[in-house]
Amino acid sequence: MDQQQARTWLATAVTEARAGLAEGGIPIGAALYGADGTLLGRGHNRRVQDGDPSLHAETAAFRAAGRQRSYRGTTMVTTLSPCWYCSGLVRQFGISRVVIGEAVTFHGGHDWLAEHGVEIVLLDDPECAALMRTFTTAHPALWNEDIGED
Amino acid sequence: MDQQQARTWLATAVTEARAGLAEGGIPIGAALYGADGTLLGRGHNRRVQDGDPSLHAETAAFRAAGRQRSYRGTTMVTTLSPCWYCSGLVRQFGISRVVIGEAVTFHGGHDWLAEHGVEIVLLDDPECAALMRTFTTAHPALWNEDIGED
Repeated sequence: MDQQQARTWLATAVTEARAGLAEGGIPIGAALYGADGTLLGRGHNRRVQDGDPSLHAETAAFRAAGRQRSYRGTTMVTTLSPCWYCSGLVRQFGISRVVIGEAVTFHGGHDWLAEHGVEIVLLDDPECAALMRTFTTAHPALWNEDIGED
Repeated sequence: MDQQQARTWLATAVTEARAGLAEGGIPIGAALYGADGTLLGRGHNRRVQDGDPSLHAETAAFRAAGRQRSYRGTTMVTTLSPCWYCSGLVRQFGISRVVIGEAVTFHGGHDWLAEHGVEIVLLDDPECAALMRTFTTAHPALWNEDIGED
């Protein structure tokens, strides 16, 4: 896909990540875009805010999009490489593409998704990485809880 | 694990599946049990009831359990083989074991979980299979939507 388009869409996810941080939450944001470029849903990690471990950024965006008959041609945009939970979501529902802000602070399942035919666009965005570095340094236990690390 | 224990725990998930069916929903139920055998959370698929595609039975049970510091030693009990989304949940959070009612009407990611060290207990339960066969025959489009099949 066009890199400028990817960066424009990433900005939506970054806005979500910043909103999560402002609420005292884990600064990861995501957005689901339709095949025609329509924004279907957006959201951010809500572990802290709602005490809900099931709402990672990607699942929050997926949930916000509501029921869809098909995910063919859709793009999940996320500030961070998707964990196995969120990668499984992408594979099961046939989301066609994942745009990723960065995969340096956490490397999830995006290689596995690429092997299974999902288009991966990795942007190496400095702000996404800085948000995570600052947060995980300040709150390591919370981050470990969010990714199931003992 | 002990088969009788597995069947006792499966009964909780079957009760959830029946409750979902009674609400007009997709009859899949799940429960998350702690390492000490405590019931941490239970739930069922809520696509129809809440219009929420993110709540598969397993993610509903996981959500109901709330925040946990560790999933070591926990068991996810589900009436149906977990899809990639729910298998990814199990892998990411380090849930140790999955008890599955049946994998004949749908074969998800449980072999992949076994390859990654998760203990899989497959029970081949006739009621679980009958619930799914009856439902998916009556509502094929709804079932396809729930597993992302176009």
